[in-house]
Amino acid sequence: MSLDPARMIPMANAIRALSMDAVQKAQSGHPGMPMGMADVATVLWSNYLKYDSSAPDWADRDRFVLSAGHGSMLLYSLLHLSGFAHPTMEEIENFRQLGSPTAGHPENFLLPGVECTTGPLGQGLAMAVGMAMAERHLNAQFGDELVDHRTWVIAGDGCLMEGLNHEAIGLAGHLKLSRLIVFWDDNQITIDGSTDLSTSENVRARYEATGWFVNQCDGHDYADIARAIEEALAEDRPALIACRTMIGYGAPNKQGTAATHGAPLGADEIAAAREELNWNAEPFQIPDQIRGEWHSAGARCREQRSEWLARLDASDQKAELERRMAGDLPEGFSLDEFVAGLVREPQKVATRKASENALAVINNRLPETVGGSADLTGSNNTKAGDLGDFFADNRAGRYVYYGIREFGMASAMNGMALHGGVIPYGGTFLVFSDYCRPAIRLSALQEARVIYVMTHDSIGLGEDGPTHQPIEHLQSLRAIPNLLVMRPGDAVETAECWDVALQQKKRPSVLALSRQGLDQFRTEVAEGNQCAHGAYRVKEAEAERRVILIATGSEVGLALACAKDLESCDIGADVVSMPCAELFDEQSPAYRDNILPNVGPDEVLRVSIEAGTTFGWERYTMLNGLRIGIDTFGTSAPAKDAFEKFGFTSEAIVPKILAKLEA
Amino acid sequence: MSLDPARMIPMANAIRALSMDAVQKAQSGHPGMPMGMADVATVLWSNYLKYDSSAPDWADRDRFVLSAGHGSMLLYSLLHLSGFAHPTMEEIENFRQLGSPTAGHPENFLLPGVECTTGPLGQGLAMAVGMAMAERHLNAQFGDELVDHRTWVIAGDGCLMEGLNHEAIGLAGHLKLSRLIVFWDDNQITIDGSTDLSTSENVRARYEATGWFVNQCDGHDYADIARAIEEALAEDRPALIACRTMIGYGAPNKQGTAATHGAPLGADEIAAAREELNWNAEPFQIPDQIRGEWHSAGARCREQRSEWLARLDASDQKAELERRMAGDLPEGFSLDEFVAGLVREPQKVATRKASENALAVINNRLPETVGGSADLTGSNNTKAGDLGDFFADNRAGRYVYYGIREFGMASAMNGMALHGGVIPYGGTFLVFSDYCRPAIRLSALQEARVIYVMTHDSIGLGEDGPTHQPIEHLQSLRAIPNLLVMRPGDAVETAECWDVALQQKKRPSVLALSRQGLDQFRTEVAEGNQCAHGAYRVKEAEAERRVILIATGSEVGLALACAKDLESCDIGADVVSMPCAELFDEQSPAYRDNILPNVGPDEVLRVSIEAGTTFGWERYTMLNGLRIGIDTFGTSAPAKDAFEKFGFTSEAIVPKILAKLEA
Repeated sequence: MSLDPARMIPMANAIRALSMDAVQKAQSGHPGMPMGMADVATVLWSNYLKYDSSAPDWADRDRFVLSAGHGSMLLYSLLHLSGFAHPTMEEIENFRQLGSPTAGHPENFLLPGVECTTGPLGQGLAMAVGMAMAERHLNAQFGDELVDHRTWVIAGDGCLMEGLNHEAIGLAGHLKLSRLIVFWDDNQITIDGSTDLSTSENVRARYEATGWFVNQCDGHDYADIARAIEEALAEDRPALIACRTMIGYGAPNKQGTAATHGAPLGADEIAAAREELNWNAEPFQIPDQIRGEWHSAGARCREQRSEWLARLDASDQKAELERRMAGDLPEGFSLDEFVAGLVREPQKVATRKASENALAVINNRLPETVGGSADLTGSNNTKAGDLGDFFADNRAGRYVYYGIREFGMASAMNGMALHGGVIPYGGTFLVFSDYCRPAIRLSALQEARVIYVMTHDSIGLGEDGPTHQPIEHLQSLRAIPNLLVMRPGDAVETAECWDVALQQKKRPSVLALSRQGLDQFRTEVAEGNQCAHGAYRVKEAEAERRVILIATGSEVGLALACAKDLESCDIGADVVSMPCAELFDEQSPAYRDNILPNVGPDEVLRVSIEAGTTFGWERYTMLNGLRIGIDTFGTSAPAKDAFEKFGFTSEAIVPKILAKLEA
Repeated sequence: MSLDPARMIPMANAIRALSMDAVQKAQSGHPGMPMGMADVATVLWSNYLKYDSSAPDWADRDRFVLSAGHGSMLLYSLLHLSGFAHPTMEEIENFRQLGSPTAGHPENFLLPGVECTTGPLGQGLAMAVGMAMAERHLNAQFGDELVDHRTWVIAGDGCLMEGLNHEAIGLAGHLKLSRLIVFWDDNQITIDGSTDLSTSENVRARYEATGWFVNQCDGHDYADIARAIEEALAEDRPALIACRTMIGYGAPNKQGTAATHGAPLGADEIAAAREELNWNAEPFQIPDQIRGEWHSAGARCREQRSEWLARLDASDQKAELERRMAGDLPEGFSLDEFVAGLVREPQKVATRKASENALAVINNRLPETVGGSADLTGSNNTKAGDLGDFFADNRAGRYVYYGIREFGMASAMNGMALHGGVIPYGGTFLVFSDYCRPAIRLSALQEARVIYVMTHDSIGLGEDGPTHQPIEHLQSLRAIPNLLVMRPGDAVETAECWDVALQQKKRPSVLALSRQGLDQFRTEVAEGNQCAHGAYRVKEAEAERRVILIATGSEVGLALACAKDLESCDIGADVVSMPCAELFDEQSPAYRDNILPNVGPDEVLRVSIEAGTTFGWERYTMLNGLRIGIDTFGTSAPAKDAFEKFGFTSEAIVPKILAKLEA
């Protein structure tokens, strides 16, 4: 360990220089945080963080999360200086420019070494909780020899003020995640000015109340930073280290003020900072000696990694760990047999229950699943198979009691998925997808295989009423890029959708499941996974086809009833089940045209039936088609009454179709 | 004050009996909480709460918020027993049935006395914070004689575990809202079982860390409950009273367990509870003496109200207070002159800046506006006009520094709007509408006039990149019922949209505003507020009309540029600005048909241009129209480069239109 200021100061100043110069050149960005936290980051990356800049994908590396993602230049500087292949200096010079991996906020899909995408406040820290959970869980499964690392976080006041922080630290404290250490950039400044404007909280007391070890240090004193870290390492709890820092440290006239937070310092102030910091190099030039120090920091654990590789090679768990970290399912994994069994013995069952039945099979075959629920275990039916509970004293357990923390759960799942080695799924009511929506978005953006089990997916939940009845949720989720929204209509489709979700290595899924029992319509053996096509014909018109009914989930059965009534009037009607619109859109034009031929409503009327908003259904019905849905809030009533009130019966729908056909 | 158990126990047992019987009859609902908190509620409603059951709309009443809304039978029992006109006993017998105001969760629009809709956990308490803010603010404006009341909350573990709780109590503690008293139903049970499963938090320490007074009591001991309340009343801070209770108190075999939380007790257990509680009345029968005690509780403050009415009559502020509580704007309020001035002197300005300019006028004319931002004041441009800051030592101030608490801000605004007397507006980035989406939904459901100022409304924000660039947000918000989403395209439209938002007495609005400067296209005097139509023609085709370009916000200018290029090819193009799709949908068929004639693309091609997802735009373009949008996540780059990359230039769009016309 070396904390000699003569070595450390120039290393930290290299971060400061790159940060202020890159922001200045881009005329956009946040110099204040990187300059303020440069000393803490230098201590961490040169003495404590276990990483090898030549191997960003080393499975047993420590995870470093810059939760305060706006300070992205801190991370880009660290990656560049310590010798990662990217960002190159040219890429740093192109900070925030089109096509450069040095995006305004760190994006995990652009740059190895960026463990997760941060910027939306609070989520980095909350994802780190998930990473720390995954680490302890894999440690329990693979042992100290193969899995033994830490998760480090730099967070700012914004991360701590967000509500999510309460959920994340509550979970981490309860689970005693001692491998998690958070540095709080305690600079007493937010965008609006002094933190006094909006908060009077005793942050340390709050963290202590939640089971954390809390320490503090002078964020510009290397020895003090190291002392605080050492003390945190000795604890058996997660640790918060309050680093008293000065935002924009080194900019003599602006440091300590909100002016350094989110704007370039300006040429004059940068010149003054160069003088203040005794930094004589030109912009984007790093003196050789400093670069050398940083490169040795980045190579510090190279031997440790070699030893780990040797242990891995010697281990009989090598193949399994590699498979799990690669995110591959076990060879030959298939639910075909399970589906075939369902087809043989049709059942009337809620799809949430069908999901539980599928999970009982999946969880026993896939050791990598980690399930849970935000305090709705019995309602979401998420606990199935031989999981065991994940507690502080049982890290091998695979079921997490997340508590009433939807957003915390979703963020932790993001962290687990990005850590790798596990496939997280977790449940809440579909209506409360709103509570974790920012994390769902981040699952999609980060290409993380997280599976959301969202039950009680319509007014069919009945008496709980409009606060609990999703209306806009399905369509709002479908509007998010790179997210599969799947709404199966019976037990077979539920199993098929689970299969699809598990196969998505780079895409999250939402499974929207019914509270109420649904008849099974898939009673014949099919070739392959029908739901993988997104939409498919479950019934072909018998009379001349005049209508195509497109339905999802619990409304597929209703569509079949409507079709029967139409056929009895000699009006031929296809029924198309559309469990996943996104997947349907990805099919070949020929496939799509076969299911939904491009002819006008005079020839074939398209009718959508979904117990949610009609908003957006024009994509499949055409504007002049018919959309059966609900464009107001729901109502508190038994499910049957609610469905009747909103016209979800064959008796209400068929006349509308007939009227439209005659119009 | 009377706390005599001989009087209180039967009063409390009346709540228990109604709750268990109503849930049993409905075969649905939550008996555990009402039975557990019946004693606390009885002390509050018979001795402390300032209300008059004959006048639920008394402006100076205390506000009571059942944050744990699943325990709705507690509130329905209290309203019924204390003599409110509703719910009647018949309505209680119809608990959770179609059309009854006794919905599964309390709905403010169904039942006077229900101050806000609760059920989505955490939001009741967070709205109560806003009510307490409104009360102190109006007190500063109208004096102790007219405004002098408290806000009381019953919350459960769910409310406290939600992240929102951290934001809400942080704000309340910082603002020293001593008129806010929260009873925590500390029964150590959640749906999944013991709270030990998921939390180890010291709740009291956390509240103390945030500036709250924390007290505790035995929730089944009337004297102890009153003592705890008295001590809380003496404090100059918001207060949490931890009430140690037994869930399902009185059900001898199930009390204290999760089994009482969300399911009927069953006939046997109810019979046993009747015995245990010594409650001999038939279901839905209340003995006369007990009803008499409750009626006198409900009339306890009737004289106090008469005195208040006398003071009001004598006050020269009577008309103003009544106007403000009725939610009416001042007579003759109009922005017409301001708009006329803008038309006379066109300017290129970001719509966020145009919003600031409009607010400078609005805030100086409307004393009821209360503005704020979640730590983005300078970016949201929300501080304008002569507001003053709302701080603990300046209750008259009208600008709130909400801190980095988007959800807390939105919930507080809901509470303020529902309290009445103020019109709250608050800002964050549009992408972070996700963080407060559950509260936006509740604004809409509750019919609350809250105005969301959401700036940085597209990839046009530039360098901050995909985490900050809204893609799906406009459409996701438009999918919410009873919410106006407005995206003005220049300074004139911005002022018009503000006018529309202010006029909505029962509807929230989202104003989506640009970061970047926009040319003013509204340069001619128009008759009336054009944006009030939702969509209108800003340019008429010159050549024969072949195209209608439909655009919103920053893309209206682009549409005009495209139209110019099309006209130069002798292709006539209308340009329709659609600042508010919801309002357009409400126009007469004749109006809509004039703007978007119902003819096929062969005749007139409809093209939408919006820098967000194309999802849902088929409603206006028809399926065979053209949709210019972004169906992936954004990119970090200067705005101009980002727009070019995603094809938002006339050069990119016009060829697509020409190709479509030729196809």
